[in-house]
Amino acid sequence: MEPPQTQPPPKIVVLRWGHRPRDYRVTTHVALTARALGAEGIIVSDVQDENIRKSVDKIVKRWGGPFFIEMGTPWKKAVEDWRAQGGLVVHLTVYGRNLTPEVLGEIKARGKPIMVIVGSQKVPVSFFSEKISDFNVAVGNQPHSEISSLAVFLDRYFEGKELEKQFEGGELRIIPQHRGKKIVKIRP
Amino acid sequence: MEPPQTQPPPKIVVLRWGHRPRDYRVTTHVALTARALGAEGIIVSDVQDENIRKSVDKIVKRWGGPFFIEMGTPWKKAVEDWRAQGGLVVHLTVYGRNLTPEVLGEIKARGKPIMVIVGSQKVPVSFFSEKISDFNVAVGNQPHSEISSLAVFLDRYFEGKELEKQFEGGELRIIPQHRGKKIVKIRP
Repeated sequence: MEPPQTQPPPKIVVLRWGHRPRDYRVTTHVALTARALGAEGIIVSDVQDENIRKSVDKIVKRWGGPFFIEMGTPWKKAVEDWRAQGGLVVHLTVYGRNLTPEVLGEIKARGKPIMVIVGSQKVPVSFFSEKISDFNVAVGNQPHSEISSLAVFLDRYFEGKELEKQFEGGELRIIPQHRGKKIVKIRP
Repeated sequence: MEPPQTQPPPKIVVLRWGHRPRDYRVTTHVALTARALGAEGIIVSDVQDENIRKSVDKIVKRWGGPFFIEMGTPWKKAVEDWRAQGGLVVHLTVYGRNLTPEVLGEIKARGKPIMVIVGSQKVPVSFFSEKISDFNVAVGNQPHSEISSLAVFLDRYFEGKELEKQFEGGELRIIPQHRGKKIVKIRP
């Protein structure tokens, strides 16, 4: 007997706040983590940085999508638009409630598409308010990295299934190996 | 009835290969992720970078430990010493077998302390060989980040319990909040 079909959980977009030019590599890692671990896209708010956009576009061209990057939208507008459309906002912050199975359950029980905000320790205090974030959640209450916080959140939210996702388009595909590297060109 | 006491899984250390001075922030994120998600320490191989060491030492002083950072050891010596002591080596690479529950089970079944190698797409090809790595494992076969790969690996390995870890010493502690920030000084 086939197991019952379960609905995939509602979609996720990531809002990266507080990018500065010197953060080029960190913001790129945030974006690629979002893509590889199942988010639909990323908004890098309040700034334009063409290098980030180019890096992400190049990955999508080579490795497939869909995955969007939007830059420069003021964070407040992005959040307000999201909420007006009925979306939930989860702010990842070291100060929040720890991401226990119970807290993840509360988030999932809302059954809504989620905007995950990743910032830094210096985010505006209003991020914590109920007008902005429905949940303030910590991936542990120890300082580490917005990249690792996002990765753990997505992996738990999608229950590991995000790593089986098949991307559309793209030119290259890796054939997993116990030893060595195998990469094939699937399109010129 | 109490559930049976289970042994904590064997310890983990992280080997960061391929750090360059411009990677300062990325390597710092790798180190802080290792600490916050349950590893015992990090070896940043082949280079000295006092800024990295200072950043990590400062975090340990403020937020507690134990957590060690070792710098400059040639990667080959670090791996050979580890293996000579009976340790297992897991190389995180986009080219490896996907980190399914089955693969994680194979790793855990070895019951040994683990050195997790995180590098880049440009690691020496010998990293893949059986002389260096017991397992070549991918956190998904899509390019993303050594930080997020390490985070997902540690979170799955420790089954989420790493986020409950109590650190010793330190000066500061965060009291998790649904709204706002609360940080207390536990030692001058």
